[in-house]
Amino acid sequence: MSQEGLLRPGIIQLRVLDMDEAITHYRDRIGLDYVSTEEDGRVYLKAFDEFHRHSVVLREADSAGIDFFAFKADGQEAVDGFRKRIEDYGVAVEDVAAGEMPGTGKRIGFTIPSGHRIEIYADMELSETAPETHNPYIYKDEPRGMRAQRLDHCLLYGPNLPEVEKFFTEVLDFHIPERVDLPDGTLAIWMTVSNKAHDIAFVNHPEPGKLHHVAFFLEDWNDIGHAADVMTRYDISRDLGPTRHGITRGQTIYFFDPSGNRNEVFCGGYTAYKDHPTRIWDGNHVGRGIFYYERQLNDAFLSVVT
Amino acid sequence: MSQEGLLRPGIIQLRVLDMDEAITHYRDRIGLDYVSTEEDGRVYLKAFDEFHRHSVVLREADSAGIDFFAFKADGQEAVDGFRKRIEDYGVAVEDVAAGEMPGTGKRIGFTIPSGHRIEIYADMELSETAPETHNPYIYKDEPRGMRAQRLDHCLLYGPNLPEVEKFFTEVLDFHIPERVDLPDGTLAIWMTVSNKAHDIAFVNHPEPGKLHHVAFFLEDWNDIGHAADVMTRYDISRDLGPTRHGITRGQTIYFFDPSGNRNEVFCGGYTAYKDHPTRIWDGNHVGRGIFYYERQLNDAFLSVVT
Amino acid sequence: MSQEGLLRPGIIQLRVLDMDEAITHYRDRIGLDYVSTEEDGRVYLKAFDEFHRHSVVLREADSAGIDFFAFKADGQEAVDGFRKRIEDYGVAVEDVAAGEMPGTGKRIGFTIPSGHRIEIYADMELSETAPETHNPYIYKDEPRGMRAQRLDHCLLYGPNLPEVEKFFTEVLDFHIPERVDLPDGTLAIWMTVSNKAHDIAFVNHPEPGKLHHVAFFLEDWNDIGHAADVMTRYDISRDLGPTRHGITRGQTIYFFDPSGNRNEVFCGGYTAYKDHPTRIWDGNHVGRGIFYYERQLNDAFLSVVT
Amino acid sequence: MSQEGLLRPGIIQLRVLDMDEAITHYRDRIGLDYVSTEEDGRVYLKAFDEFHRHSVVLREADSAGIDFFAFKADGQEAVDGFRKRIEDYGVAVEDVAAGEMPGTGKRIGFTIPSGHRIEIYADMELSETAPETHNPYIYKDEPRGMRAQRLDHCLLYGPNLPEVEKFFTEVLDFHIPERVDLPDGTLAIWMTVSNKAHDIAFVNHPEPGKLHHVAFFLEDWNDIGHAADVMTRYDISRDLGPTRHGITRGQTIYFFDPSGNRNEVFCGGYTAYKDHPTRIWDGNHVGRGIFYYERQLNDAFLSVVT
Repeated sequence: MSQEGLLRPGIIQLRVLDMDEAITHYRDRIGLDYVSTEEDGRVYLKAFDEFHRHSVVLREADSAGIDFFAFKADGQEAVDGFRKRIEDYGVAVEDVAAGEMPGTGKRIGFTIPSGHRIEIYADMELSETAPETHNPYIYKDEPRGMRAQRLDHCLLYGPNLPEVEKFFTEVLDFHIPERVDLPDGTLAIWMTVSNKAHDIAFVNHPEPGKLHHVAFFLEDWNDIGHAADVMTRYDISRDLGPTRHGITRGQTIYFFDPSGNRNEVFCGGYTAYKDHPTRIWDGNHVGRGIFYYERQLNDAFLSVVT
Repeated sequence: MSQEGLLRPGIIQLRVLDMDEAITHYRDRIGLDYVSTEEDGRVYLKAFDEFHRHSVVLREADSAGIDFFAFKADGQEAVDGFRKRIEDYGVAVEDVAAGEMPGTGKRIGFTIPSGHRIEIYADMELSETAPETHNPYIYKDEPRGMRAQRLDHCLLYGPNLPEVEKFFTEVLDFHIPERVDLPDGTLAIWMTVSNKAHDIAFVNHPEPGKLHHVAFFLEDWNDIGHAADVMTRYDISRDLGPTRHGITRGQTIYFFDPSGNRNEVFCGGYTAYKDHPTRIWDGNHVGRGIFYYERQLNDAFLSVVT
Repeated sequence: MSQEGLLRPGIIQLRVLDMDEAITHYRDRIGLDYVSTEEDGRVYLKAFDEFHRHSVVLREADSAGIDFFAFKADGQEAVDGFRKRIEDYGVAVEDVAAGEMPGTGKRIGFTIPSGHRIEIYADMELSETAPETHNPYIYKDEPRGMRAQRLDHCLLYGPNLPEVEKFFTEVLDFHIPERVDLPDGTLAIWMTVSNKAHDIAFVNHPEPGKLHHVAFFLEDWNDIGHAADVMTRYDISRDLGPTRHGITRGQTIYFFDPSGNRNEVFCGGYTAYKDHPTRIWDGNHVGRGIFYYERQLNDAFLSVVT
Repeated sequence: MSQEGLLRPGIIQLRVLDMDEAITHYRDRIGLDYVSTEEDGRVYLKAFDEFHRHSVVLREADSAGIDFFAFKADGQEAVDGFRKRIEDYGVAVEDVAAGEMPGTGKRIGFTIPSGHRIEIYADMELSETAPETHNPYIYKDEPRGMRAQRLDHCLLYGPNLPEVEKFFTEVLDFHIPERVDLPDGTLAIWMTVSNKAHDIAFVNHPEPGKLHHVAFFLEDWNDIGHAADVMTRYDISRDLGPTRHGITRGQTIYFFDPSGNRNEVFCGGYTAYKDHPTRIWDGNHVGRGIFYYERQLNDAFLSVVT
């Protein structure tokens, strides 16, 4: 099989201020399926088109933000290989026991130079509500709310982007479809371990460990418009869009969950291959790179994070 | 980088009966860019969103059909590795010198058990009209005709599907998102070497080496509708659609070039990962698998090939 | 106000063989709102975007088909004017008392030369679930099922089309955006009393009083695709589509309710004005006129009616 | 025929600062067809889906803005009837001779209380490039640029809205689908003489005779997205969107021609009937009424006019 090592973003664990509000938002508005609430209070959800047990984990806390972002690897052997490469690179690796999350095998966790915790795991149960695999329909139940199909990617804010890039490309085998280079250094990098235009992205930011947004994949531009209708109908705080990103070409809306974590609904985006050149953006054009129609950043883009 | 070995379908060489008609069809109706006509009469084209010099090669001949389908590999070392694996598997490999096609490095070619010629190559010049990579616009010129974005995949008809599957999975590292299993054997397999739902597919057929269709990728369902408008406006022979495939979930139209080669415009399709289960279709449901809305095959599906 | 006389199709009363199945179909699949079941067993429904109490009335009977199609007029004075014009034309008019349908004023009914009963009325209560009119949202609840926005038009089959056309244009003030003229007479006429491309249409047919289809309006081509997804998911019998009509340019699917009445979901269609020329279709091109992508009629088009 | 009197917006005459730039904008970007340049320098254009000779007239001048907005009436008798009603109402009517515009019959013109010139005419030649009417295709040539289908409506800024409303409803037979009522009077009115959600609209403004925008109709939300792509590709000044209006529900982008006249591309919008209640918006919600997704006005909405 030709995609080796990491497969895709598999889990995001988010901190939310009020769990009931968060469930309403992620389940009824974004349209995720509720999976379970566990004894420690964490709530598990998944998108209707995901095969595995859960992808979004909510943890009630005093401050919003991201606990960790986890990639699913192609087997335990691959996880063990990454453990060795990460430790050889000089980064400490922490073990998380199987079962720390329901239906989930053992994970490894580590902190990258931007201050974020990244995890890698290989095993998670298939969901009881996974897409059918025997004479399947395209869905069993009509998608609800914004009709999110899957957890897609996240954009993280923190320092030390050159080190982050080096780590992701040299240790985790990502490549770089797009970057923003300013005279005094890299402002932002979009990285993928697959054919998606990005699986994770980073923007340079003095404070470590911050979340800019977590993105959910929609079918197309019409579902982006529909999501905007849903946002207004339910008074969901919108940041910007419907618009397009010049970077990735994805069509998008940025908005906020009730705790202030920025969400994105995203569709399209080109198919990325590692033999394609990296697209480079200058400071003069980064506005168009981020918001293709507005052609300038809004104030919130560089300042509002959790 | 995490996609190792083969990257994607890179070239299809088609036989056409009348070159002028074929150019009008592929350039003005499907919307490919004309690249060059070479001394041997072959005509080279590419889709506007492809980076490399060409992807579609037309050769005038007395009968329509496919000469070969070529995969681009991630470097010459990967090509050499595949050469060894293929020969070790007992399949003869033929060398094609660099420059046999303009701007294209050396290729290896071999015949698979279904009677089709497959090629692998690593090097091709970037196109002068490739997508921009420095502060890029999403396109330089507005897409024309059916607005094809890229060569996407092909469906081939021939015998010995179990051997074909074994070769593609064991030697070329493909995996199998979907298959149709009849009581007397496999009717069809969809295979991918990427996150696309399929890069190549096969249907069991007594005659070797046949082409069912070559597919071009469109942006979305609206461009599928637009392509249907174009087909009627220019009296292009249509087979079936707009419809959806249950298999891959892609939205689609089948139609014919002036030589009788079936084309497809295709969009959507899920993102495939190798840890996702293979979807299995029975003979009772294969009609819905192929044509999700019609829920039955049309006569042409199993009989009209070139 | 510039649209005088008749405003639009307001009510269709359909005969269905099994009321429970019919309710599931029209409410849960097409997405109409259930309004009431009355003592005589008739069931009333409306589309979410309609202002008045009901638009679709279902009556359980031994045979499927249409009882009548009713146009809403701009006031009782207009109804009285039509009564006089119809009687002066030599057609008998029957009175239907206010309250024969709940929330509905008095109606007049008459039989046209094709054997169909047409009604005209001016008064119906506004629905409690009508679109909001004070700081409205575009909808109160997200549309369900196929997301039908309104009753749009019907296509009726019967004899004496020249007389039907004369009656609708001279007495009811319709105009003719499109017609199909065969050497031996008119095959079909599309008529409108508004800026819609058609409010009612007729096809020549020996048997009087038949229903070809009743159409519901969807937002756009994406909702047409979504409706096709719903049809397959719930095994709804499909006739043809997604496709486009050359006539009206509407995008469409034909399908059947559980009693065999043909339904259509329809979107688009040009804006019709009476100073625009009538489009004329010959027998050689009528296939493309009806089904723009298929460019030929299917067997069912001219033969399957209720 | 049931739409009596006025049919639709037929002509807008705009002032532009540089004719060459204006032609490039309206022809190549918005996608209108160039019709002619006349001796007085005025340039005539039409949308591909319009039947009559021209709909947009450009006049080079020292200041941008609108010269007049003209409605096409259903025959000279209707024009004569309006002349009498307008004069009886106390408004002076000016005659414009047939031929003042090529291919156009005589017009009447008058100034409404907001300071705008409105014209009415009945006769204009059919265009040589009108939509086909004998076995028509949906278009002869694939639409270009933003693919504008027709001149749709305009929004005008000026004083005396109560008088404007009275004149349009009592003399010209418009009705009012939507209005914004502030404590100190009406801020804005949307009026239609057809089933379109608006044919003309007004916002209260101290300076008379100003143009807020002229709108062109697109097929759907996908073409709105495409138009946004075109705007960025050619560096067209964008005001706001893609977004939706709460008022009319239309999907929209506001942008500017090279002279600073605001344009709109618009699609959707409900079907308006005069028996539907007028939607009323309060000052607290007008932001959502104008820009449904942003839920607030931008600075330019109330201040930037030509």
